[in-house]
Amino acid sequence: MHTSAYSDFKASLLEQASELRARIRSGTHTATTSGVANSLLQGNVVILPSEWAGEFLLYCQNNPVACPLIGVSRPGDPNLPDLGQDLDIRTDVPEYQVFRNGERSEKVSDIKSLWQDDFVTFVLGCSFSFEDALSRAGLSVRNVEQGLNVSMFRSNITTRPSGRFHGNMVVSMRPFASADAIRAIQVTTRLPKAHGAPVHIGDPELIGIQDINKPDFGDPVTIRPGELPLFWACGVTPQLALEHARLPIAITHVPGKMLLTERLNEELAVL
Amino acid sequence: MHTSAYSDFKASLLEQASELRARIRSGTHTATTSGVANSLLQGNVVILPSEWAGEFLLYCQNNPVACPLIGVSRPGDPNLPDLGQDLDIRTDVPEYQVFRNGERSEKVSDIKSLWQDDFVTFVLGCSFSFEDALSRAGLSVRNVEQGLNVSMFRSNITTRPSGRFHGNMVVSMRPFASADAIRAIQVTTRLPKAHGAPVHIGDPELIGIQDINKPDFGDPVTIRPGELPLFWACGVTPQLALEHARLPIAITHVPGKMLLTERLNEELAVL
Repeated sequence: MHTSAYSDFKASLLEQASELRARIRSGTHTATTSGVANSLLQGNVVILPSEWAGEFLLYCQNNPVACPLIGVSRPGDPNLPDLGQDLDIRTDVPEYQVFRNGERSEKVSDIKSLWQDDFVTFVLGCSFSFEDALSRAGLSVRNVEQGLNVSMFRSNITTRPSGRFHGNMVVSMRPFASADAIRAIQVTTRLPKAHGAPVHIGDPELIGIQDINKPDFGDPVTIRPGELPLFWACGVTPQLALEHARLPIAITHVPGKMLLTERLNEELAVL
Repeated sequence: MHTSAYSDFKASLLEQASELRARIRSGTHTATTSGVANSLLQGNVVILPSEWAGEFLLYCQNNPVACPLIGVSRPGDPNLPDLGQDLDIRTDVPEYQVFRNGERSEKVSDIKSLWQDDFVTFVLGCSFSFEDALSRAGLSVRNVEQGLNVSMFRSNITTRPSGRFHGNMVVSMRPFASADAIRAIQVTTRLPKAHGAPVHIGDPELIGIQDINKPDFGDPVTIRPGELPLFWACGVTPQLALEHARLPIAITHVPGKMLLTERLNEELAVL
């Protein structure tokens, strides 16, 4: 009975994921994936030539809160079967950001024509995964409530470098009233592979954010009187490291437009 | 080996507790028990006639965060063997507050002459228990660091009444820098029988506290620039309920001067 109910639950999620991925593949869904396909794990994406893969892998190991690794492909293989049976990283992200020599270059809706047989794909956990957990805990996630992309900022928190990869941490921000903020810390602590607990709470200036209403990525969201901003490490962090590392080519997702996997957020929960 | 090391650890703690209790019994130690006998569970104390015990028990059940029950005596029995082999509630609290008709009356160093054969003792978990956990997590607890009693405030958070017992929640406050505040929430979440996670973080006015430097009980502590005040439900809460219930007689500990038990804080930890 339990198993059957769970199977039904997961089957309906996978159907939902499959439909959404079809729309992403065909270029119909190019928007943020915030608040969509609840319960399914979403991922940040970094694709780079294998020559740089070891150094980048160590960067992730050095910064597990910002860069929690949930999948790495074999060189040249666009599939990541552990994250999705028919997942194709060349088409399954709503929008891609191409980096050339560390500069943000074109944005594209697929990377079939850019694919190289030495490309390695890294998938990192994403805070959208814990938005589902927050909602199920009865908390309202402002960016979801307002139908917006989450607010993301370049902080002054440094990451631990690996070779040519270095830079400050990008953080995502969600405001909560005090008691909900405490609950949000508890809930997200259970999900270390989706950035876990916040890295900062309260005064944005203490982590180098001058204007909370002007995010560096994503959309501004409303902060109501008496609410505290909570800041989580964000999987856009490696994009700043890519800027510094100046690889000839690297490809990421566009912030907020994530890879949808076929795994449940709950599969990654501890406790 | 493990068992033996643990036995030695606990034996040395119990020796420490026994010495401290001897000093409390003899009236040599009448100060706060904050920061003393680390690792051993401390308790808030409420003693009242058995006629009122059922109503008060339900008050504790209704308010488990402020009033986490860790022990209840049999009527007229001054011993609580579950909390300490030779524990005698008439002598083992550093200082007692007597309430008469809801008014704070005399403070005394033992209650041998006041003891009634219908007295029931309630022992409630105490935030001092989690101070040890915070310290072991590498966090500095300001009141311990400054050798002061913790700051306690009458908040505007209401409790759930039971018969004649009602009133607002008393909270204890400890300031932390942002990242430590997040860690403190995680660490104290493990100890629901010692008030668990904070009930509030940030702006004191939101819970009815006008001046953070003027606690209603205990001592003011330094709050450094950039620190957030964290507020935990406090076992002094039932003392306000006693004021309202206007029992002919009731006896509590003096805030900050707790009952030292022979149990380990860790025995009450979840997770």
